[in-house]
Amino acid sequence: MSEFRQDLVTKEWVLIAPSRRGRPHEFPRSPAVSENLPVVLNTCVFCPGNESKTPEEILRNPRSDDWKIRVVPNKFSVLELDSPKRFRNFYTSLPGIGSHEVLITRSHNEPTVLQSEEMIDDVLLTYKERILALEKHPAVKYVHVIQNYGKLAGASLVHPHSQIFAMPFVGPHVQEEIKGSSSHYNIFDKCIYCEIVDHEIANKQRVVLETEKFVAICPYESKMPYQMRILPKIHNARFEHITDEDRRELASVLKNVLSKIYYKLGNPAYNYYIHTMPFSRSPNVLHNENAYHWHLVIMPRINIWAGLELGTEIYVNTIPPEQAAEYLRGEK
Amino acid sequence: MSEFRQDLVTKEWVLIAPSRRGRPHEFPRSPAVSENLPVVLNTCVFCPGNESKTPEEILRNPRSDDWKIRVVPNKFSVLELDSPKRFRNFYTSLPGIGSHEVLITRSHNEPTVLQSEEMIDDVLLTYKERILALEKHPAVKYVHVIQNYGKLAGASLVHPHSQIFAMPFVGPHVQEEIKGSSSHYNIFDKCIYCEIVDHEIANKQRVVLETEKFVAICPYESKMPYQMRILPKIHNARFEHITDEDRRELASVLKNVLSKIYYKLGNPAYNYYIHTMPFSRSPNVLHNENAYHWHLVIMPRINIWAGLELGTEIYVNTIPPEQAAEYLRGEK
Repeated sequence: MSEFRQDLVTKEWVLIAPSRRGRPHEFPRSPAVSENLPVVLNTCVFCPGNESKTPEEILRNPRSDDWKIRVVPNKFSVLELDSPKRFRNFYTSLPGIGSHEVLITRSHNEPTVLQSEEMIDDVLLTYKERILALEKHPAVKYVHVIQNYGKLAGASLVHPHSQIFAMPFVGPHVQEEIKGSSSHYNIFDKCIYCEIVDHEIANKQRVVLETEKFVAICPYESKMPYQMRILPKIHNARFEHITDEDRRELASVLKNVLSKIYYKLGNPAYNYYIHTMPFSRSPNVLHNENAYHWHLVIMPRINIWAGLELGTEIYVNTIPPEQAAEYLRGEK
Repeated sequence: MSEFRQDLVTKEWVLIAPSRRGRPHEFPRSPAVSENLPVVLNTCVFCPGNESKTPEEILRNPRSDDWKIRVVPNKFSVLELDSPKRFRNFYTSLPGIGSHEVLITRSHNEPTVLQSEEMIDDVLLTYKERILALEKHPAVKYVHVIQNYGKLAGASLVHPHSQIFAMPFVGPHVQEEIKGSSSHYNIFDKCIYCEIVDHEIANKQRVVLETEKFVAICPYESKMPYQMRILPKIHNARFEHITDEDRRELASVLKNVLSKIYYKLGNPAYNYYIHTMPFSRSPNVLHNENAYHWHLVIMPRINIWAGLELGTEIYVNTIPPEQAAEYLRGEK
């Protein structure tokens, strides 16, 4: 029996349809990335030794030839901060104002899942620093941080990297979350994400990992098989306000759940992204830090969205999140 | 210079970012499907001779062993009409009420693009008949017709087929179109799609093909490279009210534009779907047949949506639709 499920916050719908596939968990054993790839690849523009092949560096940590992290503008940037102002005719359009940066980690053969917790923590700290730095630019209303891993997730280069987009407006996805959570707060004086965290921890079925300060769940309304959301258990609207202590724990949680995807799902492509409260200068969103709650979403790319998803915007998911969480927890 | 563009109707955003790629049109020569595949494949459950391997037939045309079209329930149906009624607890859900049919055309090696116009017309007639038949079921609020072609478009079987979903509610995509076009009609007393048709025909840049009764355009706010929308030039809210004469012309237009994708883009995977006015029993949509306008959308699957698209719901398209239309028209 399939089941339509609605997102409590955004009101989006998914269709959980387990009858589509016979057996859900037929994954190949994960190929060991480090066995197949060199630590440094001379032809890779992101590798040490090729620093001059990227656009002029924004950040290097540490500031030496032994850097672990570099942030550079994307050579094929989709956004530019010095674009002219908006215009409108029959259709509505807006110049691609903003910026598009790439965060590169040193080793060619160490994707996030194989990095040390310390390294992942440095990456998370760099995300935070870039968000805070880009917030200072008056044209920037939101900073969107992502990682695309693997070809099927849209990654065009193998070398491990993240991307940081400074946006001239808040995208529909976060707008809808802000709208839904503000409307909930207006009535109940409670953050809807805090309620979800409490409900999921009590219910247990969809919890993949719980630590002192974080919980990773397969959301009730998962659009994709094995989709995960990491949320702080204590209310916090902004990722960029995370404490050093919490950030170190988040690095450990992220490594842990990425390991589950890597080893249990046969190293599939994935995307992850962070949703955080838009800057207070964004005039078209409601501002109440009590109502919103940052989170990190991981989307393994196992299914393909087809004509049903594209034409209806209802997403068919063949693995119920309860079953996905049970499998990822490792109980069977 | 990239450019954000807004959908006039749904208010969705895309980012047209041509700087992402050097040269846009590097497609392999289209492989000739008919050279690689047999007319009948004994192991294919959709091929003639294997009629008993599908669930019990809904429709066969003509009613003989020489059938050209069959409609059968999907063996892995994501929806069932005899599901129990809705329920709700902490989250909102709804049983997967509905139906999920497969329309099969006879020849294993003849995808729509290689079929005769007469055959395509028979398929379009069958779509229409199934929509009208499914409308009679009180639980059905919308019928969604699609074709998935190729693995990257989510097609699990090679044998040419379409899918017909009877839905227990109208999906967000059509809901947003109805909302946007009704709101436009409320103010201007005009169908916004009629205005788009007039604007595009006068403007010419994004027109791929114009016939007496139809126009095929690359939409201003294309989410994907080479995306196309076929619209009737004369206002008509419902695809299922199409006349025989118009339907024959549509078959010719569909074959023509699919040929452009097949021969000029190297036979990529694609999805197409039809958007039509929801049935009048759907209580949650505004009902004014003057305000909505049916259309058929074709989505070649050349790009992959990644962390930017999934996390913001802003869609990066590396081929401006003006350039896509020019290429598909064949002027260079």
